Amino acid sequence: MITFTKSLSKLIGHFEKFPGIGPRTAQRLALFILKQPESSIVDFSKALLEAHRNVGHCKKCFNLTSEEECEICRNTERNQKIICVVAETRDLLALERSREFKGTYHVIGGLISPMDSISPELLEIRSLVERVSKSDIEEIILALTPSVEGDTTSLYIGKLLTPFTKVTRIAYGLPMGSELEYVDEVTLARALEGRTNLI
Amino acid sequence: MITFTKSLSKLIGHFEKFPGIGPRTAQRLALFILKQPESSIVDFSKALLEAHRNVGHCKKCFNLTSEEECEICRNTERNQKIICVVAETRDLLALERSREFKGTYHVIGGLISPMDSISPELLEIRSLVERVSKSDIEEIILALTPSVEGDTTSLYIGKLLTPFTKVTRIAYGLPMGSELEYVDEVTLARALEGRTNLI
Repeated sequence: MITFTKSLSKLIGHFEKFPGIGPRTAQRLALFILKQPESSIVDFSKALLEAHRNVGHCKKCFNLTSEEECEICRNTERNQKIICVVAETRDLLALERSREFKGTYHVIGGLISPMDSISPELLEIRSLVERVSKSDIEEIILALTPSVEGDTTSLYIGKLLTPFTKVTRIAYGLPMGSELEYVDEVTLARALEGRTNLI
Repeated sequence: MITFTKSLSKLIGHFEKFPGIGPRTAQRLALFILKQPESSIVDFSKALLEAHRNVGHCKKCFNLTSEEECEICRNTERNQKIICVVAETRDLLALERSREFKGTYHVIGGLISPMDSISPELLEIRSLVERVSKSDIEEIILALTPSVEGDTTSLYIGKLLTPFTKVTRIAYGLPMGSELEYVDEVTLARALEGRTNLI
């Protein structure tokens, strides 16, 4: 079996650490790097460090921003009385793409998972409770993935916040365009459980 | 729609340039970068530049190496009289993974494609002809993808090299484990065309 030169193996190793990047993709990305002009590699390195240094967290909702508060928290046209709780910034971005939600967010930074030793204290839950207790919030919408960890986290937050305000959870059910026969049984069970009146 | 901070957008743009990386994956990779400690970003940047500077092409077969000649060309246990022609280093690596081939390679660096203005002169075909004409080569095995470009390149190289030595092409046919009913018609046609005697 051919072994890579040391510096190439090292680079492949770096790419393998990225989420969702397996050994084959890591290899393809590293080979792509070798084909680029040196100037674009230098640009890329700079962009990496710059983004890492400039981008921080909104002190209110923990969304990414290079200011004190993120643009959603600063936007007066958004309903500051409704907070949608998400695990990660990418979930916030997915919700923004749907253009359905006009409130604000709170990015807790993960899900409670004893298996991965992620306890509630490691997440931005305390800051959420503080935020809710200190201002006039009408509704908390929990938008966490439907999984053991997501459900645990939803329940945990729900118990803490129901004394202060209304707490809801986004619907679980059949995804649009899905064929009922191919939908997995857990989703089907959840869809049945969550059935609503037609009229 | 939420806009990213400038430095984050820039970083996402860099990731989008990688092969096979779409906007969503680019976003995920960039967000991953933000979560890393600065030291690993610095390490990654260094690895990028180091690999780019240290790794060059074997002067004989154009495989990647940090020496004059790659380890396959230097390996005396490999049959130097058989050359397998591949388009890219990643194809060479795929063949090496199969552990089936014990000869040497020639990486031409792409396929002839008038649509993308890749003419034969841009590929390592001249060096291949020189290599074959100057040494005692028993067989050239063309291992290029079955596509218009692959076939064109195979034919082009075949015409140049048949005066010197035997030129063969790897088989096209049903992939192992495939269900005949799901195999596309072009593959089926090629498989029929390439049928061999059973005994």
